[in-house]
Amino acid sequence: MTVYLVGAGPGGVDTLTVRGLRLLERADVVVHDRLVDQDVLALIPSGAGQIDVGKHRGAAASQARINALLISLARRHDCVVRLKGGDPFVFGRGGEELLALRDAGVPVEIVPGVTSALAAPAAAGIPVTHRGLAHGVLIVTGHAGLDPEIDFADLCRRGVTLVVLMGAEQRERIARRLIGGGLPAHTPLAVIERACTSAERVVRAHLERLASLEVAPPAVIVVGAVAAIGRPDLRALAKDLHA
Amino acid sequence: MTVYLVGAGPGGVDTLTVRGLRLLERADVVVHDRLVDQDVLALIPSGAGQIDVGKHRGAAASQARINALLISLARRHDCVVRLKGGDPFVFGRGGEELLALRDAGVPVEIVPGVTSALAAPAAAGIPVTHRGLAHGVLIVTGHAGLDPEIDFADLCRRGVTLVVLMGAEQRERIARRLIGGGLPAHTPLAVIERACTSAERVVRAHLERLASLEVAPPAVIVVGAVAAIGRPDLRALAKDLHA
Repeated sequence: MTVYLVGAGPGGVDTLTVRGLRLLERADVVVHDRLVDQDVLALIPSGAGQIDVGKHRGAAASQARINALLISLARRHDCVVRLKGGDPFVFGRGGEELLALRDAGVPVEIVPGVTSALAAPAAAGIPVTHRGLAHGVLIVTGHAGLDPEIDFADLCRRGVTLVVLMGAEQRERIARRLIGGGLPAHTPLAVIERACTSAERVVRAHLERLASLEVAPPAVIVVGAVAAIGRPDLRALAKDLHA
Repeated sequence: MTVYLVGAGPGGVDTLTVRGLRLLERADVVVHDRLVDQDVLALIPSGAGQIDVGKHRGAAASQARINALLISLARRHDCVVRLKGGDPFVFGRGGEELLALRDAGVPVEIVPGVTSALAAPAAAGIPVTHRGLAHGVLIVTGHAGLDPEIDFADLCRRGVTLVVLMGAEQRERIARRLIGGGLPAHTPLAVIERACTSAERVVRAHLERLASLEVAPPAVIVVGAVAAIGRPDLRALAKDLHA
């Protein structure tokens, strides 16, 4: 009957919302992505169906197949949970599923989740906004590099923190693009791998070192003065940037 | 002993995280803001202390007083929960409390919450990112108007969704700034009041109507092509903007 587009958050059960937890516990069937934590999947009742569509992520044809699957499940079940890592609407393609379901006349409820774009810096002790350092935050993806037309250097100078999702594999290109665009090589930066899981790893550095860092996906890259917070050696640089 | 900076999410218990719920249930004392939902506050054990610092929000002196309060509570209690609406690090001044606590040698754990910046559009059925329409999202505050130096029109043209928190009272100034900066008057827009609560209200319009809309805080303003999603009359305009 109803499809619930649920954000699972970036980590285990701790980062799931109470609404998400309750829906999982009463789901008839759960359709989930690769990035959803095993402890969250363990909440699914033993009698409920569980479909992993993770290996198909990315390609347009597969998205059409997922849409069709959700529509057909909604016709046979009361409570269909579409579970996505993070938040369904922050680079989760939830919008496409929402529109396909609505076009098919299927009732949909959106259940926002904690996005890794904000939880990853938070887990590393980095506030994406901070009085005197950052009064805005821009979230983009880096899987295809960064938009060549956006003036990231200017935004950073104006106190906007840059958060790049899915940028691990393109980090050399991203660093080149940002420095080439005018961002100082010593701009503070943090890379957070597997945020909010037991395998979380945080690396702090300057922008010029991004290309040479060892980073395994999934990772979140945070660029801007706030990335120096809590690191006295970088804090002086943050002040410098905003002098 | 430890201070937990917990994001309560934008609504009731449903939008709280499981980690936040568990911490509230075992808190010795909870220090909370004005924007935290009553149903969330009802989770606090009857034996625990509950301190509302909401009326002091905003002024610098009061922030110093809150910092001092948290430090002194941490010296007397095992589990001090500092509860903030939304996420503690998205315009929540959590960074200032984190630094003050660390400087005082108090252990701190950050518990990210669902931010209204993303949950409000989601609740309205608006994906802040959407293939072909938006590949980034910029979150800023509007309580003092918008930064005159940021080229919002250019960002919007490049497919960045603009989310303005705390902009209700300055909406006339914000509309003037965006249109004056080159954003087309017919840019799709949504205003979400009291997102994720029973009093939630969503208004969809074009940018030129923002100044004349009735809006009561707290409200989230979403500007960009995605604000037309699910509204056929606005969808044509969204395509137009990105032609």
